[in-house]
Amino acid sequence: MNGNSIGKALVLTCFGESHGACVGAVIDGCPAGLPLTERDIQAEVDKRRPGFTLLSTKRREEDKVEILSGVYRGYTTGASICMIVRNVDVKSEKYEEIRYKPRPGHADYTAYVKYGGYNDYRGGGRFSGRITVAYVMAGAIAKKLLSTINVEVLAHTVQIGKVKIRRAPSYEEIRKNTYQSPVRCADPETARLMEKEILEASREGDSVGGIIEAVALNLPAGLGEPIFDSLDADIARMMFNIPAVKGVEFGAGFQAASMRGSENNDQYVIRDGRIITLTNNSGGVLGGISNGMPLIVRVAFKPTPSISKRQRTVDLKTMKEVEVEVAGRHDPCIVPRAVPVVEACLAFVLADHAVRSQRIPRVLKKG
Amino acid sequence: MNGNSIGKALVLTCFGESHGACVGAVIDGCPAGLPLTERDIQAEVDKRRPGFTLLSTKRREEDKVEILSGVYRGYTTGASICMIVRNVDVKSEKYEEIRYKPRPGHADYTAYVKYGGYNDYRGGGRFSGRITVAYVMAGAIAKKLLSTINVEVLAHTVQIGKVKIRRAPSYEEIRKNTYQSPVRCADPETARLMEKEILEASREGDSVGGIIEAVALNLPAGLGEPIFDSLDADIARMMFNIPAVKGVEFGAGFQAASMRGSENNDQYVIRDGRIITLTNNSGGVLGGISNGMPLIVRVAFKPTPSISKRQRTVDLKTMKEVEVEVAGRHDPCIVPRAVPVVEACLAFVLADHAVRSQRIPRVLKKG
Amino acid sequence: MNGNSIGKALVLTCFGESHGACVGAVIDGCPAGLPLTERDIQAEVDKRRPGFTLLSTKRREEDKVEILSGVYRGYTTGASICMIVRNVDVKSEKYEEIRYKPRPGHADYTAYVKYGGYNDYRGGGRFSGRITVAYVMAGAIAKKLLSTINVEVLAHTVQIGKVKIRRAPSYEEIRKNTYQSPVRCADPETARLMEKEILEASREGDSVGGIIEAVALNLPAGLGEPIFDSLDADIARMMFNIPAVKGVEFGAGFQAASMRGSENNDQYVIRDGRIITLTNNSGGVLGGISNGMPLIVRVAFKPTPSISKRQRTVDLKTMKEVEVEVAGRHDPCIVPRAVPVVEACLAFVLADHAVRSQRIPRVLKKG
Amino acid sequence: MNGNSIGKALVLTCFGESHGACVGAVIDGCPAGLPLTERDIQAEVDKRRPGFTLLSTKRREEDKVEILSGVYRGYTTGASICMIVRNVDVKSEKYEEIRYKPRPGHADYTAYVKYGGYNDYRGGGRFSGRITVAYVMAGAIAKKLLSTINVEVLAHTVQIGKVKIRRAPSYEEIRKNTYQSPVRCADPETARLMEKEILEASREGDSVGGIIEAVALNLPAGLGEPIFDSLDADIARMMFNIPAVKGVEFGAGFQAASMRGSENNDQYVIRDGRIITLTNNSGGVLGGISNGMPLIVRVAFKPTPSISKRQRTVDLKTMKEVEVEVAGRHDPCIVPRAVPVVEACLAFVLADHAVRSQRIPRVLKKG
Repeated sequence: MNGNSIGKALVLTCFGESHGACVGAVIDGCPAGLPLTERDIQAEVDKRRPGFTLLSTKRREEDKVEILSGVYRGYTTGASICMIVRNVDVKSEKYEEIRYKPRPGHADYTAYVKYGGYNDYRGGGRFSGRITVAYVMAGAIAKKLLSTINVEVLAHTVQIGKVKIRRAPSYEEIRKNTYQSPVRCADPETARLMEKEILEASREGDSVGGIIEAVALNLPAGLGEPIFDSLDADIARMMFNIPAVKGVEFGAGFQAASMRGSENNDQYVIRDGRIITLTNNSGGVLGGISNGMPLIVRVAFKPTPSISKRQRTVDLKTMKEVEVEVAGRHDPCIVPRAVPVVEACLAFVLADHAVRSQRIPRVLKKG
Repeated sequence: MNGNSIGKALVLTCFGESHGACVGAVIDGCPAGLPLTERDIQAEVDKRRPGFTLLSTKRREEDKVEILSGVYRGYTTGASICMIVRNVDVKSEKYEEIRYKPRPGHADYTAYVKYGGYNDYRGGGRFSGRITVAYVMAGAIAKKLLSTINVEVLAHTVQIGKVKIRRAPSYEEIRKNTYQSPVRCADPETARLMEKEILEASREGDSVGGIIEAVALNLPAGLGEPIFDSLDADIARMMFNIPAVKGVEFGAGFQAASMRGSENNDQYVIRDGRIITLTNNSGGVLGGISNGMPLIVRVAFKPTPSISKRQRTVDLKTMKEVEVEVAGRHDPCIVPRAVPVVEACLAFVLADHAVRSQRIPRVLKKG
Repeated sequence: MNGNSIGKALVLTCFGESHGACVGAVIDGCPAGLPLTERDIQAEVDKRRPGFTLLSTKRREEDKVEILSGVYRGYTTGASICMIVRNVDVKSEKYEEIRYKPRPGHADYTAYVKYGGYNDYRGGGRFSGRITVAYVMAGAIAKKLLSTINVEVLAHTVQIGKVKIRRAPSYEEIRKNTYQSPVRCADPETARLMEKEILEASREGDSVGGIIEAVALNLPAGLGEPIFDSLDADIARMMFNIPAVKGVEFGAGFQAASMRGSENNDQYVIRDGRIITLTNNSGGVLGGISNGMPLIVRVAFKPTPSISKRQRTVDLKTMKEVEVEVAGRHDPCIVPRAVPVVEACLAFVLADHAVRSQRIPRVLKKG
Repeated sequence: MNGNSIGKALVLTCFGESHGACVGAVIDGCPAGLPLTERDIQAEVDKRRPGFTLLSTKRREEDKVEILSGVYRGYTTGASICMIVRNVDVKSEKYEEIRYKPRPGHADYTAYVKYGGYNDYRGGGRFSGRITVAYVMAGAIAKKLLSTINVEVLAHTVQIGKVKIRRAPSYEEIRKNTYQSPVRCADPETARLMEKEILEASREGDSVGGIIEAVALNLPAGLGEPIFDSLDADIARMMFNIPAVKGVEFGAGFQAASMRGSENNDQYVIRDGRIITLTNNSGGVLGGISNGMPLIVRVAFKPTPSISKRQRTVDLKTMKEVEVEVAGRHDPCIVPRAVPVVEACLAFVLADHAVRSQRIPRVLKKG
């Protein structure tokens, strides 16, 4: 009945709620001998901080990472690694009002039904976007593991509301610009339009969604375990576990549906002694296995469900139709803060598969 | 390292290759007392047959279902159920040519790399679309299980190449028209345009892709196990295990990215004493849990990679660039035959969750 | 590669080391609506405290339980429950000596080999008996779950060194006497002999082992999932994960090997309208499924490997034969402190199966 | 709810009943490039044949192995491997009588309760010893995998009824004598006494149990994944899934309970540049990880529950006490036929762990 663990070689187990004591992650299966400090994890968690405070929630999240196990003298020991971030500055009173008045677009209603009203509803409880701190902590370890085989994972915003990125940025631009931009867009000009889009929605008490693209570079061919642990299937599953995600596609994605086979097929050639494809419509995955080309995935986020406008809902105790106004601090667009989360999720799945495929050894050699 | 099993309460394990002895499925965890015959499974497998022979592969697939275990006197016993379909009419000789010349868009290259050349390459081997017969056999059981709680699963084609369905068909139309149509489209007029689209591509030695939509009706609220066994995450994972799938979305899906929160949020009202939402942009899933509205998922298929046109590839033995022409029987569009597969995949995940959620008991009561 | 999770419906994930920050457990899949406080867990953890300080380790373990997630307003929420006990009063310096001199009978050598020397060796690290605090915390929840269906789990010492219990105590005696006795033996007379046995070994700088028996009462028939998740197989697996366990048997156990079938078979009769067996040589399990009779399991513990006597070992750096003297606080017999651990392990597996079998609902009704 | 799969890197899924169409096994995760033919599997399955027909069941089991998938041109492909043995010569009529009269010592009653009477009761159905053919088929592959790293697995009978082996046979004797002996005992003199023991019981319409010991040689140190996938825990779990097993112990086992620490601890020395222990009371496992010494496990079997004597039971339909006489072909002692099963079970768990530990690569090199 459990659903709080994911992965096979590298297993992530999560716990924690928005307004409980903490949010935490246990990583099991991490090879021994990986240099790891709280600073490494903290650096990734900090990327989740709002880049542009006007655009983003006002809750002050210090998010100080503590490693509770599995690391000794700066190296992973092979034991399970527990990491937590304590919750501070939580204001739970206002959630009393929504206890029986589920907010449209949130999990309030479904959690109530599933858990018979026992769910912790404060701030969305277990369903809050805040739980993604745990994903990012896991991703931090995954990225370090991947770096031992030179795999790099990047993510960036390609759409906010109706503003789409004008052109595909280079990997160099993504590396350089993404976290400089409050909206995490690698193209500065588009970034400005995206900011405007968010502010406009915000001013109207409304919200917007968007699309994030993630890329993995230098991925070896051969990762992925068909038929049910396909690389793309596992990545898609992980992405849909990020709150607010409504669509996932690889390479040409939905566009592939209207392409001809002759146009969509990626033909093979040799460059510098290596087999590559001339195009990358597959997004680096064929038959659920990586082909050595950049892995490309795009993830669609719905607009933040928390908006200031009055909305219709039902009082679950009286079963009468009522209205609800969502008070509380909320983001008019969660996409920018989701960029490191998408990055972490992709890294986690790839690291899991790299260990399964024996590309990463169980004990890492020193230096 | 295994990847041939999926599901938690209801577990599907698959085996078999395109040109081996058979394709098979083992279902573990099926409640005891479900009436089940080979005819029940056969009826679903038959839906995978080409509806329109000109449009589709010429391989004669009899696909006769045999149940090898787990059923006694017409009822499931609670033991694991093994079902197979033997492969007949296989012509493997022509695949010798492509052994070291991977076909673009197929898994030939990635399978070769992953399995060191030991993979069975005949007809795509383990990566052939033919393995989806196993999904359909599993789906047949899942649908019978779901019917005990009145859940119905439907799938239909909404796009072939550049032809999109003109309007959303009613559930009644989907039930009535889908399998009457060779392209499995519920709108007869669109269906004709789709046929044309396929024939045109076929005539040019090319292929087209498309989009299938699946719907689950009467689904109880409360299915789905957050945070990592979310209902949508599990469904997406299953769909991406169908060969050629490149995108999956729920409800408003990628469109949600450009909507405003006030527009995308599904507001609650009461109708006939039941809580429903006025719109269904969520596609019936909130926070990874079903909300009682129709579950809606769309799955994008790339065009069949097998085309008659010459394509560039690499000889894996000589590491020289060469050209390849894909002989063999192949479909200019696999979308129509994938409709019952998508249906089966959705049914399987829902039945798994219905048992996990204890909505379906471990022993079914007699009639 | 992971090994730190166990269970299917109720899943226990553990972390922590003897001399790290804490020892912790995450319980996933606990039904919502179970009344649960830190006091409930603390009461079980306290049973692990040495009953007789002269007999037992001098390390002062306060073992204060903290619940970090999954409980709100005194009830489980359906979310994963993380519990920790911080390590205090750890003295790690003395372990520096044994870093490269593995203590005979401990996991020092195997952990060194497996993790390439990166393992936390202080106090046995991840392999310390201290990690069983996590099992006891999990068992506390399991026992509360089982109590909702009136299942009771008891454990008691039946052998210490060469002293065996004279006669089978009644359940009432086990309930009343076990935790009154410093050796956790339900027969006071035997208990005194056992104390003597331990003191004698202790005086000689040596140690002794023993046997613990656990019983589950009122267990419904029908728990256990053949063929590989048999109830006895799952219980045995769990018990062998307690450090120092070397044997597990059910009912007549090893004695059954020398019995005749006519003597060992438990014949069925009806008593008070219920089917029971005249004997219970099966220990309550047939074909891996509970039969409604008391479940009986016995677990053999080797003597504590930490002894004061000098022993031969090898210096792993120099690969020279050396001698080692195990300093540090250690128990001459860990059996008494293992009694609540065995109890917890049995309870955990039974609760997992009770949820899987849908005997315990996913949401518990109030009152 | 499933219980028909076991293993993590190498996964075994089983299906089939005593009187159904077949008994089968799917192996998932087998590395590609292992030479494998039906003959390899058949050789192991043949070891399960009665060695001494007077001692054993009269059912003629041809047990012809068919490989249905996962092998191409004599090598494993990396895909899941399905193997079956069809059931022939089944006589099911006589089981009609016991449908509602559960035989003492069998799983008839527990299966009836668990599956609401839908279980296939013929010949014990899913609970028959016959299902162990599937274990042996899996073990055949496991043994071939282990042979690539020079690990050898042996099993032999050490006790039948009250007759215990007089002395520990050498590995050479076990290799040479075991399958020459109808009772699978490596000491010819003991073997004769064991035969007598069985015949005596048989003559009285009764049955006897026994103990099998299994050993793994050349096992590398470092296999096993603490804390819950300990090598001994996984082996014990597997053994308890063999019908009729009531006890499992490693090394000194239950005897360790009455030993002193100084006596039980295995001290380290260096021999031929390798670290070994002077004794092997641990049975080759410390902290759940192999230490490079021979792994030693002993498995206790209860006497065959099928006996000719009249026994008391209950009619499940009328709920009246009745008597039952077990007709049908049955073994007065199943221990001899269980020897290759225990061997297979040990081999399977070790191969699973060898792949998890990356001791066996995912693709085996030629030659």
